[in-house]
Amino acid sequence: MRLGQVIGHVVSTQKNDRLTGAKLLLVQPVAADGTDAGQAVLAVDAAQAGIGERVLLVLEGRAAISALGRRGAPVDAAIVGIVDRVDAESAGAALNR
Amino acid sequence: MRLGQVIGHVVSTQKNDRLTGAKLLLVQPVAADGTDAGQAVLAVDAAQAGIGERVLLVLEGRAAISALGRRGAPVDAAIVGIVDRVDAESAGAALNR
Amino acid sequence: MRLGQVIGHVVSTQKNDRLTGAKLLLVQPVAADGTDAGQAVLAVDAAQAGIGERVLLVLEGRAAISALGRRGAPVDAAIVGIVDRVDAESAGAALNR
Amino acid sequence: MRLGQVIGHVVSTQKNDRLTGAKLLLVQPVAADGTDAGQAVLAVDAAQAGIGERVLLVLEGRAAISALGRRGAPVDAAIVGIVDRVDAESAGAALNR
Amino acid sequence: MRLGQVIGHVVSTQKNDRLTGAKLLLVQPVAADGTDAGQAVLAVDAAQAGIGERVLLVLEGRAAISALGRRGAPVDAAIVGIVDRVDAESAGAALNR
Repeated sequence: MRLGQVIGHVVSTQKNDRLTGAKLLLVQPVAADGTDAGQAVLAVDAAQAGIGERVLLVLEGRAAISALGRRGAPVDAAIVGIVDRVDAESAGAALNR
Repeated sequence: MRLGQVIGHVVSTQKNDRLTGAKLLLVQPVAADGTDAGQAVLAVDAAQAGIGERVLLVLEGRAAISALGRRGAPVDAAIVGIVDRVDAESAGAALNR
Repeated sequence: MRLGQVIGHVVSTQKNDRLTGAKLLLVQPVAADGTDAGQAVLAVDAAQAGIGERVLLVLEGRAAISALGRRGAPVDAAIVGIVDRVDAESAGAALNR
Repeated sequence: MRLGQVIGHVVSTQKNDRLTGAKLLLVQPVAADGTDAGQAVLAVDAAQAGIGERVLLVLEGRAAISALGRRGAPVDAAIVGIVDRVDAESAGAALNR
Repeated sequence: MRLGQVIGHVVSTQKNDRLTGAKLLLVQPVAADGTDAGQAVLAVDAAQAGIGERVLLVLEGRAAISALGRRGAPVDAAIVGIVDRVDAESAGAALNR
């Protein structure tokens, strides 16, 4: 999983039937300190997430289908939780303890 | 999923039988603002997409096979929808609200 | 698998049911010499790992589900072991032997 | 899928039984204009490709196994077609139409 | 698959049961000319590889499990063969023929 931040949503009328009604959110993967970490992805929302929220993001079809709960849905990314808090230190700091 | 833009198509006569008749489109992954985001991929078209259109792109075999609807097809990317509209803000902007 | 170092943990109350009780750790992939190697990921802990420990990290749903032991859990990364020791030389050094 | 160009082959006598007789080709992923795009991969040849040819490359186990037609073969990349022609424009050009 | 070079090994006592007895090698992906190509990975050895050897590396759970021959093992990378010889030319050279 990755930490992500919801930065938008996508409207698509003409799409695969198994995506009907699925909310498609644009999610920016972020590091523990909130800085961008890689390219934004489109994820189906399986956790009632809103714009600006920090989320748990899975980036694999198997996990995304489980989260969405629709067999055979053509998805490869999903939001599976809302992040309350991140407690992190840098890898370098951990090494020096 | 990723946002993509259809930038071309590929003609291949000698190919796996399960790809017969599949339309192979060249898709450039793009960011929310339309700028390039990574390398172009070849995706099977499962959404009647045309050159220049903004699309929903899945990048995994499981999802691509579901979209194409052919069991055992050797595919790992597919277009599963046409994008009508993207509403996005930058991650930084979201953080500062 | 990748070598990783546990650098934090994430608290999420509102999440997928199949993640209930799973410990979510923030893991920094590292090279053999301990330097950072890529973006930190969120992994379910299947090896009783602690902050600062060097771990074995799998980065795929199939493997992560096996490690967690919960069918259908929406996970794509897991800690599957604690590293006692890494014996490594650089690729260049190996070539020159 | 990716566009690739066959740039070599690999000889391996001591290998997994299910790879016996499989032709292992070194393939350089390329952009539509033929320039290099990422690291070369080793793919099993399921399309009678030759050195220098432009090919369709799948980069996933599920698709590669389907192409090779051997259940349980430890493969994650395969050549599934020969490219006759690529018709492409840049994403930027498409945007400006 | 990728070309790799074995550059070390990892000792882990506390690990998932299905990894018991598996040899975990540190493998540096390399280009055809032997130069480093990306981050080192930890792979289970299914080909009796030794330090310094050039190997065939699969980077996916499905393929790695097949190679290891243990259902449900939490692995995502494996060594499936020893490389005898690589015959390669640059993509550019191939294009100019």
